Amino acid sequence: VKPDRKKKRGVNAKAPAPVAAPAEQPRLTAEQMAAQQRDISVAEFFTKNRHLLGFDNPSRALLTTVKEAVDNALDACEEAGYLPEVVVGIEQKSETRFVVSVEDNGPGIVHGQIPNIFGKLLYGSKFHRLRQARGQQGIGISAAALYAQLTTGKSIAITSRTARSRPAHHFEIFIDTAKNEPVTTKDEQVRWDHDHGTRVELELEARYVKGEKGVDAYLRQTALANPHVTLRYRPPGVSNGEMVVYERATRQPPPDPKEIKPHPYGVELGMLIKILQGSKARRVKAALQQEFSRVSARIAAEICTKAGIPESADPRRIARQQAEALFAAIQNTKIMAPPADCVVPIGETQLVKALEANVKAEFAAAVTRPPAVYRGNPFVVEAGIAYGIEGYPPEEAADVLRFANRVPLLYQPGACAITKAVVTTDWRNYNLPQTKNAPPTAPMLIMVHIGSVWVPFTSEAKEAVAHYPEIIKEIKLALQECGRRLMTHLNKRAHAEYEAKRRSIFELYIEELSRSLDELTGCGKEKVRAKLRALAAQMTKKGEI
Amino acid sequence: VKPDRKKKRGVNAKAPAPVAAPAEQPRLTAEQMAAQQRDISVAEFFTKNRHLLGFDNPSRALLTTVKEAVDNALDACEEAGYLPEVVVGIEQKSETRFVVSVEDNGPGIVHGQIPNIFGKLLYGSKFHRLRQARGQQGIGISAAALYAQLTTGKSIAITSRTARSRPAHHFEIFIDTAKNEPVTTKDEQVRWDHDHGTRVELELEARYVKGEKGVDAYLRQTALANPHVTLRYRPPGVSNGEMVVYERATRQPPPDPKEIKPHPYGVELGMLIKILQGSKARRVKAALQQEFSRVSARIAAEICTKAGIPESADPRRIARQQAEALFAAIQNTKIMAPPADCVVPIGETQLVKALEANVKAEFAAAVTRPPAVYRGNPFVVEAGIAYGIEGYPPEEAADVLRFANRVPLLYQPGACAITKAVVTTDWRNYNLPQTKNAPPTAPMLIMVHIGSVWVPFTSEAKEAVAHYPEIIKEIKLALQECGRRLMTHLNKRAHAEYEAKRRSIFELYIEELSRSLDELTGCGKEKVRAKLRALAAQMTKKGEI
Repeated sequence: VKPDRKKKRGVNAKAPAPVAAPAEQPRLTAEQMAAQQRDISVAEFFTKNRHLLGFDNPSRALLTTVKEAVDNALDACEEAGYLPEVVVGIEQKSETRFVVSVEDNGPGIVHGQIPNIFGKLLYGSKFHRLRQARGQQGIGISAAALYAQLTTGKSIAITSRTARSRPAHHFEIFIDTAKNEPVTTKDEQVRWDHDHGTRVELELEARYVKGEKGVDAYLRQTALANPHVTLRYRPPGVSNGEMVVYERATRQPPPDPKEIKPHPYGVELGMLIKILQGSKARRVKAALQQEFSRVSARIAAEICTKAGIPESADPRRIARQQAEALFAAIQNTKIMAPPADCVVPIGETQLVKALEANVKAEFAAAVTRPPAVYRGNPFVVEAGIAYGIEGYPPEEAADVLRFANRVPLLYQPGACAITKAVVTTDWRNYNLPQTKNAPPTAPMLIMVHIGSVWVPFTSEAKEAVAHYPEIIKEIKLALQECGRRLMTHLNKRAHAEYEAKRRSIFELYIEELSRSLDELTGCGKEKVRAKLRALAAQMTKKGEI
Repeated sequence: VKPDRKKKRGVNAKAPAPVAAPAEQPRLTAEQMAAQQRDISVAEFFTKNRHLLGFDNPSRALLTTVKEAVDNALDACEEAGYLPEVVVGIEQKSETRFVVSVEDNGPGIVHGQIPNIFGKLLYGSKFHRLRQARGQQGIGISAAALYAQLTTGKSIAITSRTARSRPAHHFEIFIDTAKNEPVTTKDEQVRWDHDHGTRVELELEARYVKGEKGVDAYLRQTALANPHVTLRYRPPGVSNGEMVVYERATRQPPPDPKEIKPHPYGVELGMLIKILQGSKARRVKAALQQEFSRVSARIAAEICTKAGIPESADPRRIARQQAEALFAAIQNTKIMAPPADCVVPIGETQLVKALEANVKAEFAAAVTRPPAVYRGNPFVVEAGIAYGIEGYPPEEAADVLRFANRVPLLYQPGACAITKAVVTTDWRNYNLPQTKNAPPTAPMLIMVHIGSVWVPFTSEAKEAVAHYPEIIKEIKLALQECGRRLMTHLNKRAHAEYEAKRRSIFELYIEELSRSLDELTGCGKEKVRAKLRALAAQMTKKGEI
């Protein structure tokens, strides 16, 4: 920080000399300007600002397209209660052109909704609910369609079927960007060898890259965090027979996450006013009970009393000052934390299974924390580690895999609360070397998952989790417990190695000793040797020699 | 990079065992899901995702609010051709509540447009035009209103008048977030002591901080980049008499930037199709001429020929394949760079004036580059440096001030092309010490401005310029020229210092010599001394001694 600078212009400058009147005739009048003011469609906005949605370059556009389609497929299967089977294909048409297809065995989409779901930004079922899901906004897949249309002029193609008793429908849809409305250019019944499910196909300008930020890594990590999913993947230039297959590791689907009402602690004043105005309850007390999580009749009454508002007041006629009193009363009332069944972890057993299925490691452990709350939103954190991995150089920093609502996060590790928590955990407490601001130096994989009804991403491209102190704290607690378990394992191993070493030294002399004793006493060489060996094993175990 | 890992799941896994049929009855059917699918208003979207617009914490919310209002005020004044006079006030109401007011002498806003401008996101005049302006999207000031309403439940208040002959109007406006529509709660004629102009006032939860990322720094830098603006600022707790005043340094307003059509090289295939479909021309040749910049009749004919499309084809009936041929033909046709009068630099003279008015420096220089083009968008880069600044410690890295369309950028320097260009310029070529990935180590201020019809920001919060190679190259060229001028100055100074030093050593002996010569020859002490001095001056100048 530098010292205050001198200013010539600045504080306490003298009163200005009177300014000459501005030009009599303005260059442009308010009326002329008004003629140019008009609505901007959200589709136009995101076409111009597509970097906000993860479409800033061709390789990222490919990943984002696959990601949005797979997220939707998995969400739909799980919400309907089907064990997900997803097939992802990437076909290269020319140097810069690719066709992406994603097919699922989900519930399908009803005929009348298909154009809106795929041909309109900001449309969907997830935005208005507080429910743990991969998608949150109703913007992802239609943004991919928008990008495909922009770069290749081609429509998105959808095939969907809701039941064996119903026909399959095939759609081709453009987005009218000026209106943010779908334009259906094909809508026909087709034969399809699936009883139910959805298939989307997009042609876009893209680049296929391998490595940490590519589609391959994304799908491998998706399989890791979703052990109940079977995933088939055909990369560019690969035949159907050589597909990459991630077979499910369990047939146990994750429990259905419950939808919840907002918790009073997480609601701003303006939101409180809006919720009360929109309530169907006739009395403010009832409105508080109905619209919020964990507000019992007793708590609602307490809030009203503290705010000095009659319980019978009409919630739609609460004045701003009254709302402010209610808001203050809520902050001063002890309200139970939100329920935990709205957040669904992967689970310790499944995580260990997934780690062991993915890397060949000497040791694996996982920890799921109890649910916690940030800004009124429940969340759950879990961490898994695999240590002593075959093929990992021991002198490199551990790999860190980040997940939010079971979706791998590949970009912007530096901006993410997960990275922050990993590098600020003191791994030397668990006998692991660590350089400053880095993960521990070990042949190790660290996996962190945060599940929440609303994951606070730092951007709409959903790449990094914001630095809420509550979230960082929970991640560190999970990592520390993993560290302790690893240390116990390493100590045990070190002890066993020490024991074996001591015993082997001792055994060098057993042969000599048993022969000499036999010669001296005639007690029998084999008998003495067996006794001495048993003694050696017993004593090295006790640590006496 | 680590070696390929072994996979148990993965490439060439065996064909899976047939999966048992999924649960017969889905948890939720497609029809039940459809009932929950609906529109999401853009206001709801940005309420939940307000971090995308720069409202992620209270101190940033205060800065963003001031910034959006001041940007609008300056844009309006300049577009109408008035020399801007802006008054900014921040009043603290309680520990976390502030009232922000911004008043300008601009053209005012017509009565009927006021609700839309301030109470509706994505509404305005700037989005659909390619014209250099501070605002680009029609989202900033209504986002501030949304944030104020969310955190304090209060409406935005606007007073505006378009001419002395017209009444002033006072509005109070809420945003109906579910519809993204304004709700006017007050609309009345008032007396106002301004002939024309606009005043906005918002009450919001905020925090007032000093320092590099605060409102004070933003306004100081705004004055620096806008020497034609008079800015008055009343920080919290300061009376009207003690306002901070940045008096304008020039009465010469910047030239009016021309609006342009898109350049063919910057247009994607999908956009080309959209533009042709929206054209009023009846022939594709005419459409190309009318809708794009720098497409003459000859160029348009050349494009049609190369694409194999008749010049008389109806642009609204161009098939996708034909559009693709046109697109390829455009890339293979030599088209002149876009015109330069659409980008307006601050100018070298004004920049040096501004630097000298702001810091007390030994040397100041500025360089304005000729306009250049990225992705079809014209832009202009300029750089200014002030060196040997009083109060700047010489052992610290130089300060870097970043500007885009005359707006200071305070956040995310690490993500910005300007920072990248400054730290990758080799300042040691100009005899300035520099550590890796840092600006030069010197008591110095570096100022970089990029002006463009469309500044490619990395996020909607408009904090950092994306890393386009064309932009980085131009910035480095401007910085290098500044560096050369600084080196010339420093060399001159060093030479003068060296000369003075040599002369002073020489002069030590002049007294002694002239006395001795006088004694020996009787030529007169003063005469000899004067001759010797003249000789010394002449020879040190020539560098002979």
